[in-house]
Amino acid sequence: MNAEIITIGTEILIGQIIDTNSAWIGEQLNSIGIQVNRITSISDKKDHIISSLDKAFQDNDIIIMTGGLGPTNDDITKKVLTEYFNTELVLNEECLTNVKEIFQRFNREVSEVNLLQSHVPKACIPIINKAGTAPGMWFEKEGKILVSTAGVPFEMKWLMTNEILPRLKEKFELPHILHHTTLTTGEGESTIAERLIDFEVNLPMHFDIAYLPSPGRVRIRLSGQSTSFKQLELEMSELISSLELLLEDLIYGYGKEDLSEVIGGLLMSNNQTVSVAESCTGGAISISFVANSGSSDYYKGGVVSYWEEVKSNVLNVSPDIIKQFGVVSEEVAIAMAKGVKSTLNSSCSISTTGIAGPDGGTLDNPVGKVCVATVVGKETVSNTYYFGGSRSKVIERAKYAALNQLRLQLLSIRK
Amino acid sequence: MNAEIITIGTEILIGQIIDTNSAWIGEQLNSIGIQVNRITSISDKKDHIISSLDKAFQDNDIIIMTGGLGPTNDDITKKVLTEYFNTELVLNEECLTNVKEIFQRFNREVSEVNLLQSHVPKACIPIINKAGTAPGMWFEKEGKILVSTAGVPFEMKWLMTNEILPRLKEKFELPHILHHTTLTTGEGESTIAERLIDFEVNLPMHFDIAYLPSPGRVRIRLSGQSTSFKQLELEMSELISSLELLLEDLIYGYGKEDLSEVIGGLLMSNNQTVSVAESCTGGAISISFVANSGSSDYYKGGVVSYWEEVKSNVLNVSPDIIKQFGVVSEEVAIAMAKGVKSTLNSSCSISTTGIAGPDGGTLDNPVGKVCVATVVGKETVSNTYYFGGSRSKVIERAKYAALNQLRLQLLSIRK
Repeated sequence: MNAEIITIGTEILIGQIIDTNSAWIGEQLNSIGIQVNRITSISDKKDHIISSLDKAFQDNDIIIMTGGLGPTNDDITKKVLTEYFNTELVLNEECLTNVKEIFQRFNREVSEVNLLQSHVPKACIPIINKAGTAPGMWFEKEGKILVSTAGVPFEMKWLMTNEILPRLKEKFELPHILHHTTLTTGEGESTIAERLIDFEVNLPMHFDIAYLPSPGRVRIRLSGQSTSFKQLELEMSELISSLELLLEDLIYGYGKEDLSEVIGGLLMSNNQTVSVAESCTGGAISISFVANSGSSDYYKGGVVSYWEEVKSNVLNVSPDIIKQFGVVSEEVAIAMAKGVKSTLNSSCSISTTGIAGPDGGTLDNPVGKVCVATVVGKETVSNTYYFGGSRSKVIERAKYAALNQLRLQLLSIRK
Repeated sequence: MNAEIITIGTEILIGQIIDTNSAWIGEQLNSIGIQVNRITSISDKKDHIISSLDKAFQDNDIIIMTGGLGPTNDDITKKVLTEYFNTELVLNEECLTNVKEIFQRFNREVSEVNLLQSHVPKACIPIINKAGTAPGMWFEKEGKILVSTAGVPFEMKWLMTNEILPRLKEKFELPHILHHTTLTTGEGESTIAERLIDFEVNLPMHFDIAYLPSPGRVRIRLSGQSTSFKQLELEMSELISSLELLLEDLIYGYGKEDLSEVIGGLLMSNNQTVSVAESCTGGAISISFVANSGSSDYYKGGVVSYWEEVKSNVLNVSPDIIKQFGVVSEEVAIAMAKGVKSTLNSSCSISTTGIAGPDGGTLDNPVGKVCVATVVGKETVSNTYYFGGSRSKVIERAKYAALNQLRLQLLSIRK
């Protein structure tokens, strides 16, 4: 079963707002086994709406249309749909009651324009919108479905969740779709793809693989489709096991997990705490811990020692070490990690020192060079990394490398 | 001149990622006088790509296509374009040199799949991509243009900014469009809109105003279109002056300036330095300084004192003050700001302590309550703010409020 999502509104086309509705609707449709073939964004112009409807009905079974149902003059979706289905607007008593109830709740008089929202095309099944004044409209045409909803995200979500998705499940016999995302860090997209050449070749026809790279990590998504959910689950779990064997060292989590959250779990299961000393990453590692609700259970705090004197005064890094090895060195990183661990009295620590660029690089210390030290109890690990990209990319990549270094160390000690 | 944006990738259709590329491209095209008529998102399927191309060429003059140019097998855009333009893939030496240089920079061997990225359709003008290994491809067909770029945002942005937009401006005669963005913090969208009711009513017909809210700030964009650039510039500068009178206290900058950058400028002009003590913002203020290249001129470092003992041990906040006033109090914020200023030996400082949520709120200290102290020389300012929204929104709003408090203090001392 194929679907198209059509969003209406000039604000999307000029980049004033980012269309988050479509991603949400796509995820929801997909989860009940409806495949989204196309997302189209157009302006509030009659001929654009009509030509998009023609094309959508031609290619797809289900059309979800959002936007252009407000009470003001620039909202023309309902008028255009009435014309498209060659019908007329009629007052719907149930919709009128709903609008009146909503205004009553806020102790306000129903305005003239809002009363007009209770008029719906005669050819549609109106869907009462408990989250707003614009009803949803369900049209059927030669076995195909078009549903129009308001574009305001919480109204659209209410209608989709409570009315439209249940009705679609009832109307169509849908296949099962399963997605699984594996999160990796430590290698780029192409290196991972090379490791998975055989895996890809042997992937069952009803499965797909996709690589989703972002600075510092690559997400790998497996998608399968079948009429038997049990079979699908079984196949998926076998594929994940193969993937784990092939990429074991790179996998840090699954789904929407964050690397810092994974580390939080490891620390907590062992009653450990962490502190962070950052130079070039400037607080990025600390905020990635703090972003997780409940992180105070394992994250004690951090020091951003951007100036050399802060490294010496707060983290007790000896000026001699800095002089001897240079500020971007594993020796200094180790001294920073030990210093913050002792000052903040934590059981583990992470440190970074490097050149984020774009300026400040030298032959010995090129832009992108980052030294990372991690301490777990009495064991210290240090590494030097070379990252590419802009200042923000170097910081992001260094953050993932530093976090992953601690993760691997925590795991290796456990074994 | 009309354009269509086509984004390719199943991850958008199933809602795994939100398509932010299209909004960015829409804004850029709009800014040079090209109107986007449609945004279409489709999957990596040959027939979908071809039918979308047909429809796009039928309705529009310019097509910007992103995605599906990666080195892996699921990326098929280049193959499909080669077929669509009835041409063949040929090795392009310039692209090859670029790929080799990029790999050399990271001391890595060029892999087989990456070498293949130097092959481009014979019928296109290849556009060297200095931000990645997949070149852009510029096709012309009956006076219409199709450009294909990688979907990775920073590669796409590099190609658009440095190559594609300048070439489009050269190719077509476009009307003059002028945009100006005023950056504000301290009030929400509706309060600002109320202050600007008369301003909006008196706006010339060929000007538009747009409010772009994000947590902690509202950007106000004025856009004008005209055949006379001089006239447009004059009108714009008059409008900006009116805006400045109406919103003076809220404006912190213009265009793409960051609030931390503005503060950096104020500090440097006075040979001042800043340090940061963060509790609930967890490093967000520090990283916003460090994100600016050259910030080491004024930003010395910070302490993330997430646990109470870190506030006492590192920042010398007396446990008595914490006991007497509670950890979320202006008294503790002041002690933190003074502590970090003295420990890191800076001339100014910022501190935050609050409840980011979603848990941990009480009647006295509800989720969203944040106390901020700022010190400039011997003068201290403290305030308590109440923010709404999720954990990440509270952190973001607290960051802007704290930075803006320092900005206003620096300005008031100057006067």
